[in-house]
Amino acid sequence: MEDKILLAHGSGGKLSHDLVENNLAPLLSNPILDRLDDAAVFELNGRLAFTTDSYVVNPIFFPGGDIGRLAVCGTVNDLSMSGATPYYLSLSLVIEEGLPTADLQRVMTSIRKAADEAGVKIVTGDTKVVDRGSADKLFVNTAGIGVVPWGVEISGSGAIPGDKIILSGTLGEHGMAVMSQREGLQFSTPIESDCAPLNSMVTDMLEVSKNIHCLRDPTRGGLASTLNELAGQSHTGMKIEEDKIPVKEAVRAVCDLLGFDPLYVANEGKLVSIVSEADTPKVLEKMSRNKYGAQSAVIGEVSAEHPGRVIMKTSLGASRIVDMLVGELLPRIC
Amino acid sequence: MEDKILLAHGSGGKLSHDLVENNLAPLLSNPILDRLDDAAVFELNGRLAFTTDSYVVNPIFFPGGDIGRLAVCGTVNDLSMSGATPYYLSLSLVIEEGLPTADLQRVMTSIRKAADEAGVKIVTGDTKVVDRGSADKLFVNTAGIGVVPWGVEISGSGAIPGDKIILSGTLGEHGMAVMSQREGLQFSTPIESDCAPLNSMVTDMLEVSKNIHCLRDPTRGGLASTLNELAGQSHTGMKIEEDKIPVKEAVRAVCDLLGFDPLYVANEGKLVSIVSEADTPKVLEKMSRNKYGAQSAVIGEVSAEHPGRVIMKTSLGASRIVDMLVGELLPRIC
Repeated sequence: MEDKILLAHGSGGKLSHDLVENNLAPLLSNPILDRLDDAAVFELNGRLAFTTDSYVVNPIFFPGGDIGRLAVCGTVNDLSMSGATPYYLSLSLVIEEGLPTADLQRVMTSIRKAADEAGVKIVTGDTKVVDRGSADKLFVNTAGIGVVPWGVEISGSGAIPGDKIILSGTLGEHGMAVMSQREGLQFSTPIESDCAPLNSMVTDMLEVSKNIHCLRDPTRGGLASTLNELAGQSHTGMKIEEDKIPVKEAVRAVCDLLGFDPLYVANEGKLVSIVSEADTPKVLEKMSRNKYGAQSAVIGEVSAEHPGRVIMKTSLGASRIVDMLVGELLPRIC
Repeated sequence: MEDKILLAHGSGGKLSHDLVENNLAPLLSNPILDRLDDAAVFELNGRLAFTTDSYVVNPIFFPGGDIGRLAVCGTVNDLSMSGATPYYLSLSLVIEEGLPTADLQRVMTSIRKAADEAGVKIVTGDTKVVDRGSADKLFVNTAGIGVVPWGVEISGSGAIPGDKIILSGTLGEHGMAVMSQREGLQFSTPIESDCAPLNSMVTDMLEVSKNIHCLRDPTRGGLASTLNELAGQSHTGMKIEEDKIPVKEAVRAVCDLLGFDPLYVANEGKLVSIVSEADTPKVLEKMSRNKYGAQSAVIGEVSAEHPGRVIMKTSLGASRIVDMLVGELLPRIC
């Protein structure tokens, strides 16, 4: 095996087959993938959820994760946000010629580990190689399929005035971890990405409530953009309180230093749920008991006022409009 | 709308939403996509086929197609090669900052047209933008879901000695069309890509026979690599006859000029089917009657000799081993 990826690894010929059959597929092995046909075939019934995401994060390795873990968790989480149980993922790689083969294997190993943690299987894939300078190291696409249990109706348009807004934990770790790594910043307390699969948390939540109206993970654009999206889709207002939004001290310090607002920084292991007031205590309890939801908190509520707007009561007691992100804060954060 | 794509169009914030909601989603509109949630939700039952492909073709527009048509047809065809009826596609874009917005809209329009022709819907998507020089104009990923009818068992490992090998038409047009466009070659008879959705042909074929053992589209690596794959997966030999393999005169001329062998050049609208001898006449008839199969021909047969090998009887009557493609013939052909 060459120690760098060559253009010929994307030719569809002998080196492609060697790469896939000897290096990539064995690391992800399962009976469906192992057939290596043009499409994976499996039985699945019901209301399916289907999603896709391409990952272009720079650098591809960062504290708390890498592009592989990100690609698995991101797609698992997108499926989970529709209330679906994720089952199967596809994996497509665009590799820049010259990528060390060891880096590719490290990413594959991380993909396998994240997939095992989330309980999903990579069942089909594709590999393309482009000439040096036509891509940046490695781009990863994952698409995913899950099943939405009957009776579950979760959508961005489901929020109702009076519903509570629950956030599953602290904001901004993913964005600040990637940013720090990219810029070579060193802190006494290194910030790690929160990149994690949230499907087990969603399963726990759906066990105790059928009144979870919206679920969304505040990735690119951060919590501010996510709440604006939900306010727009649901034609309601969203009122949040700054003091109730948890942010780790190290993240707050780096954000202050670099001029970022944690409300706009990407997360990869957090979710926002909008839940009927009556069911909020039991949903919050389930979230808090999950490994990835220990710091869950009610941060505000849905209101009939200011439809389409997010209003935040600041620490000083004033109210301000929290707009959607304008411009680009942190390119290639995911 | 800006006339070029900016980094901020990939931020997850306001410009991202404007791009998706005002420019991309309307061109692809359907009730499932229009909800614009993190995942598409639809009902589907049975044996599902699932596949993914990333497209990095250079240039993104070429005679007979573009990266959009290619991405739809490629994934539709991969589903079809498992015998599945394709239903839903995801679409994920990695855009290089500075891409003219008009180019993106032209690609989207082409995607819609190809999806309509194939009878599939784009139901979920993702858009990333990378800084200039970190990608080359536009990369497109499509994943797809289809349903395999009960009783259909098609796999690369299904070939049996005595089966006939049918090719659905002339070889090499896609590869030579892209190559000519990239290199600025001009010919009196321009070569057009054969890029086309083959699902209607496969439906026609499955109507008359349950004894179609293998289906595969000879894309990257060409017919030679495809037959080697099938020979390897099925542990059989493949015997083909050079004189029976149709190649257009213009393609043969360019291949001769540039030193390519049409057996190794990519196709995007052709399929190879391996069919029981008894069912071959009726399958061939159905293929020939399809718009994309008019020049279908039996080009050889599966043999018990030389398992894993492809042997070709040349025009001069000699026999030679046709190996899998070694090295890279035509980078970024799809």
